[in-house]
Amino acid sequence: MIYFDNAATTFPKPEEVYEKTMRVYRDLGFNFSRNRSSKSKEASILKENLKSNIRHLLSSQGEVILNPSATFSLNEIIFGLDYSTIKTVYISPFEHNAVYRSIKEAQKRHGFDLEIIKFQEYQLDCAELQLKFLSKKPDLVVCLHASNVFGNILPVKEIFLKSKEYGAITVLDASQTAGLLDFSDVSDFCDFIVFAGHKTLYGPSGIGGYVYNNNSIKVNPILYGGTGIKSEEEDMPEDIPERYEAGSPNILGIIGLKISTDWIISKGRDKILQREKESYSRLLEVLKEYELTIYSPKESVGIVSVTSDEYTPQELEILLNENEVSVRTGMHCSPLAHKHMKTGENGTIRFSVSYFNEDYDFEKLEEVFENIF
Amino acid sequence: MIYFDNAATTFPKPEEVYEKTMRVYRDLGFNFSRNRSSKSKEASILKENLKSNIRHLLSSQGEVILNPSATFSLNEIIFGLDYSTIKTVYISPFEHNAVYRSIKEAQKRHGFDLEIIKFQEYQLDCAELQLKFLSKKPDLVVCLHASNVFGNILPVKEIFLKSKEYGAITVLDASQTAGLLDFSDVSDFCDFIVFAGHKTLYGPSGIGGYVYNNNSIKVNPILYGGTGIKSEEEDMPEDIPERYEAGSPNILGIIGLKISTDWIISKGRDKILQREKESYSRLLEVLKEYELTIYSPKESVGIVSVTSDEYTPQELEILLNENEVSVRTGMHCSPLAHKHMKTGENGTIRFSVSYFNEDYDFEKLEEVFENIF
Repeated sequence: MIYFDNAATTFPKPEEVYEKTMRVYRDLGFNFSRNRSSKSKEASILKENLKSNIRHLLSSQGEVILNPSATFSLNEIIFGLDYSTIKTVYISPFEHNAVYRSIKEAQKRHGFDLEIIKFQEYQLDCAELQLKFLSKKPDLVVCLHASNVFGNILPVKEIFLKSKEYGAITVLDASQTAGLLDFSDVSDFCDFIVFAGHKTLYGPSGIGGYVYNNNSIKVNPILYGGTGIKSEEEDMPEDIPERYEAGSPNILGIIGLKISTDWIISKGRDKILQREKESYSRLLEVLKEYELTIYSPKESVGIVSVTSDEYTPQELEILLNENEVSVRTGMHCSPLAHKHMKTGENGTIRFSVSYFNEDYDFEKLEEVFENIF
Repeated sequence: MIYFDNAATTFPKPEEVYEKTMRVYRDLGFNFSRNRSSKSKEASILKENLKSNIRHLLSSQGEVILNPSATFSLNEIIFGLDYSTIKTVYISPFEHNAVYRSIKEAQKRHGFDLEIIKFQEYQLDCAELQLKFLSKKPDLVVCLHASNVFGNILPVKEIFLKSKEYGAITVLDASQTAGLLDFSDVSDFCDFIVFAGHKTLYGPSGIGGYVYNNNSIKVNPILYGGTGIKSEEEDMPEDIPERYEAGSPNILGIIGLKISTDWIISKGRDKILQREKESYSRLLEVLKEYELTIYSPKESVGIVSVTSDEYTPQELEILLNENEVSVRTGMHCSPLAHKHMKTGENGTIRFSVSYFNEDYDFEKLEEVFENIF
């Protein structure tokens, strides 16, 4: 199979993830930190090392919360905030449903004003943002780092720096960028950075989380239950991360993500990014040979959306799938982004690369396209 | 290591789980059902087969919802119900914090009356229950199938049958029993049956769920986000299971749980139960040789709590851990159960067996106890 659906989940994973994860799980596969055995201690150290890796890759000193997914993280933050002082919420026009549906539901519950930050295609309208913020002070700003549909990198620093002038809470959805992009100039302006373990962090599915950069902001947890500490109390403990890690953790996911982030760090994030950029250029070269409308921002995280006058995205996907080329079509759970870019009701067909795409993949894609068009 | 902490998570898992899970993940490790490739279809079939296994083991025809954990499931149901018609909630005195803390939080939000069903030690007080229900009609009854502290099996059929006479919603927490006990005489009286994948179902960590036995009861989801269907709608879809499965699924966990439930079915649930019973008897034999207070109900799911006059549970755990015996001490995230059984402020030391405990484990435990006492 030729895999161009890496924005959904990177595939394959680094060989170490397949090889070592289950071996370590076999040795340490019981609940972390919940008893006093030497193996339990070893498991706790592994978990702490994973958290260090995450901090390193996200250029943050904050507490790392581990949970099942980026969706879970975004929901926890969005629903857990205290809305008594949040009157206006801003989001980008590229938000995924993990943000958009949650924000709309939170709006129903709390009745704040929801504003979409104005962009001209991929370009932030700075003057408009300034005016908007002046007339309606931002209290909460949620923005993704890169679009899962078009791959464009958003000017997060600009948006959050401006938001911070008004004391807004800032939430960065780094689902498509953690482990890939440099966070050193962004992290300081984010109160929360959300990551998915199974995308650009190259870990297995079922693990994600967020960095809690600003402890002065209180968040109520989504889940109430056992945390292994202060069991006698009726309320969830105030301690971070325990407050946000109720229930038995995904140990297998934690081990896999530790191994994949070790791999990223030893390989070098820059090198991985460089290779993805090369693959993205190669992908564009192939696509440009055919009669396709290509949505291509100046800079992308290896994701490109296209449409064709000849086929709907769904028809094109079937043809590609018949030739063992894996892509994704439709709305990609981001109707807002499609609406903003006016892609039409069928959405787009999306190609996305990872570190592991090879020359052969592009040659094969070209061959398949030659037969289709 | 001698492992007697199976009530926390079963360890080891069946050999197939270690051997095959990652192999299948390597082959099918991308988001299920979200594109049209043949591999994606194969993955969808695997997921459906897992759901069939769960239905079979829980004697249910309901829709199976897969999510990260039993804690997640209990929270989703408890917080997702419509409390406009729920005035009185009953729980057992053995509930885990996944229920107790959630119910207390839900009570803060919705203001219902919370009643603890009366038990004499492990024995349901039937007359008292009848009187209680008569004077205060039950609207929601949440009960675990077996205590994670004492292993006692609760008379769920009796409680739920009576609850149903009043039209109450019934939620069974089968975290310690799914895949182990027979559900055929219980399932019909449960509106929801919650399971943990990594305990008596012998799967990996990070996967759990619940059976939605009664579609006439509406539950709001915990998570809002992408579901792969109806992306263009602002609200979460009404479709079950999609409504409750937002975000990328734990594919690795799904594969592992499919393999482990195949193993249970092919091995025979009865045989596994029989073996656990034998191990439990063997465990009791060893414990009875020493000066310990043993909390032992008539029938147990392989879990036993003890205290000692000579050592606190914590002191005893340290001594056992030094000898590579893994157990769990304290409150086991179930302060309610400890309070009910008056175990004292230090809680108990808990031993729990699985199908995989061997003679050697008990001999070693005896040897270690000989040195301690």
